[in-house]
Amino acid sequence: MEIINLHSYSIVIGAIQETLPGVLHQLDYSQLIVIVDENTKMHCLPLLESSLEGQSYVLIEVPSGEQHKNIQSCQHIWQEMMQAQTSRDALVLNLGGGVIGDMGGFCAGTFKRGVRFIQIPTTLLSQVDASIGGKLGIDFMQVKNSIGLFQNPQAVIVDPAFLQTLSLREVRSGYAEIIKHSLIADAEQWQLLQQYESLENINWQELIIPSLLIKKHIVENDPKEKGIRKALNFGHTIGHAVEGLALETSHPLLHGEAIAIGMISESFLSHQILGLDIQDVRRIARYLLQMYGGQVLPNEQYDDYISLMRNDKKNEGNQINFSLIQPVGQAVVNQTCNSGLIRESLDFYNELCQL
Amino acid sequence: MEIINLHSYSIVIGAIQETLPGVLHQLDYSQLIVIVDENTKMHCLPLLESSLEGQSYVLIEVPSGEQHKNIQSCQHIWQEMMQAQTSRDALVLNLGGGVIGDMGGFCAGTFKRGVRFIQIPTTLLSQVDASIGGKLGIDFMQVKNSIGLFQNPQAVIVDPAFLQTLSLREVRSGYAEIIKHSLIADAEQWQLLQQYESLENINWQELIIPSLLIKKHIVENDPKEKGIRKALNFGHTIGHAVEGLALETSHPLLHGEAIAIGMISESFLSHQILGLDIQDVRRIARYLLQMYGGQVLPNEQYDDYISLMRNDKKNEGNQINFSLIQPVGQAVVNQTCNSGLIRESLDFYNELCQL
Repeated sequence: MEIINLHSYSIVIGAIQETLPGVLHQLDYSQLIVIVDENTKMHCLPLLESSLEGQSYVLIEVPSGEQHKNIQSCQHIWQEMMQAQTSRDALVLNLGGGVIGDMGGFCAGTFKRGVRFIQIPTTLLSQVDASIGGKLGIDFMQVKNSIGLFQNPQAVIVDPAFLQTLSLREVRSGYAEIIKHSLIADAEQWQLLQQYESLENINWQELIIPSLLIKKHIVENDPKEKGIRKALNFGHTIGHAVEGLALETSHPLLHGEAIAIGMISESFLSHQILGLDIQDVRRIARYLLQMYGGQVLPNEQYDDYISLMRNDKKNEGNQINFSLIQPVGQAVVNQTCNSGLIRESLDFYNELCQL
Repeated sequence: MEIINLHSYSIVIGAIQETLPGVLHQLDYSQLIVIVDENTKMHCLPLLESSLEGQSYVLIEVPSGEQHKNIQSCQHIWQEMMQAQTSRDALVLNLGGGVIGDMGGFCAGTFKRGVRFIQIPTTLLSQVDASIGGKLGIDFMQVKNSIGLFQNPQAVIVDPAFLQTLSLREVRSGYAEIIKHSLIADAEQWQLLQQYESLENINWQELIIPSLLIKKHIVENDPKEKGIRKALNFGHTIGHAVEGLALETSHPLLHGEAIAIGMISESFLSHQILGLDIQDVRRIARYLLQMYGGQVLPNEQYDDYISLMRNDKKNEGNQINFSLIQPVGQAVVNQTCNSGLIRESLDFYNELCQL
């Protein structure tokens, strides 16, 4: 068992049967609620249940997928809690990926003005990304996480065993955040990662822990995202817009797949605005395209991408805000550029895809 | 101008033209948003506008009334903010009574994970009650304020001039909270209040300030409502249930009218459970009935009242939680009782009504 202590809670990494009972014993609660989707209900709930030592719980199920991370699903969760006569001293366990963690946390954090919750991320993405930072929320009007709040869980339980329930595509999606953490804060780790050509047979705990430590360091220095925490948004201004529009199509992208596109385009912006070495840009693009493939972004949607970027939370006033890198392993936040340059960066990505 | 300083913000009491400009000058914001209902738009917005020194703002209107303090209205507010491309560094002014303050604050506090807001309460109730404590929220499934959060405004602007826009019935409703503050914390003030037989020609500033100071004292000693802050719930366990059911009828009660009923019934409980002098109970009942009239609570709805009480946020586990008084001027929190005694307290109220 490994423990990463943050200011107000801990991330406990290891087999859940060995970690969860100790965490629960430290808390007093009147009722246990478990929030799942149909996938985690089938694949992850049995493992969780075996760690509950026979305690009863109220199960709340929501449909899986980013398209259900919305106010309607919240209403369903709140209704179920109301019907279970959940009181403020209950405890919610969010068992699932980012959608369950973000939305279940938001519902808990707002039910009767705040019920405590524990995050049990079951995807690689949520284990390395969503488990630190206390960001909760849902999507609204196609804008990701546009309604939400900052609130910390009581604890985060990370068990790499859950990753065995994922498809390779989902694992790859989560891996994009591990790559991002290296690009914004750890050039050596970036060198190391490029040696992984496949994601099978990896000891994930060894990659998750350094990635969590990078995120911990950044978030603890800026809990409310006023400055350096924005470094984590590298690849996300363009990535979120690409993800948002893809959601509307019959071929939605996973978060990490969209962020990979965002990181390629924003590496190009880093070159144009900050002078990031073009060879580094090419290395980043090559590795990401090899890992994620390339999907051409239709020219006629550029305006829609830019309009979604304008509504990004990270903006101040009317400017579109970017977090870029220069050199590799170091982030430079609060960069802005005109829409012409954004278009060029999308063209740059598209050209590489078509090679 | 009078200023009450709380830990993290100030309540500024006086003519808004003299108070608001100074408050706004201290804040940096990219956009000003004003949330109103149709009443405050007509009666209060002109006065606010005259204090904005020509600054432009985005106006968002929601229908007035507790029945619109719901997730649908929130979606409307969020949509308007999204369409106005509101960024996280905007500033929201909530111009209205408790509904606008609670719901506008909740929408601001969750939009892009938190936009700052200023409360400009325009009813007596919200001036003495909602302006301290950072409680935000909406009603859900008939349960008042069951979805929400704790978050402080940047400032509260109290201008008694707004009270001139209210009906006498609304003023009387707010007065119930002034009475409550005296009953839980200031026996002398209670003596004084009983001398007011009518609510016309009152210098409200003189009654608002002591009432705010009582609430400040209580809330600052218990910001998250773990203990003594529950004193403020006197009259509210039964009052909220009465208010909740009345909302469903063609004769909804104003908040203070329901709380007056709650204070009578809960004074009776204070007598039964804590030995509050029955003469005091009768004095409280007499003054409240004289001020608010008496509306008989149908026997056949007792079960519904009790079932609503069971879903009250204040409960822990399965018990219905009451904040009672003994003696007058002192609160005793975390009292519970069986449903038989609750029925008796409703009978007690009903019998007095019918005298």
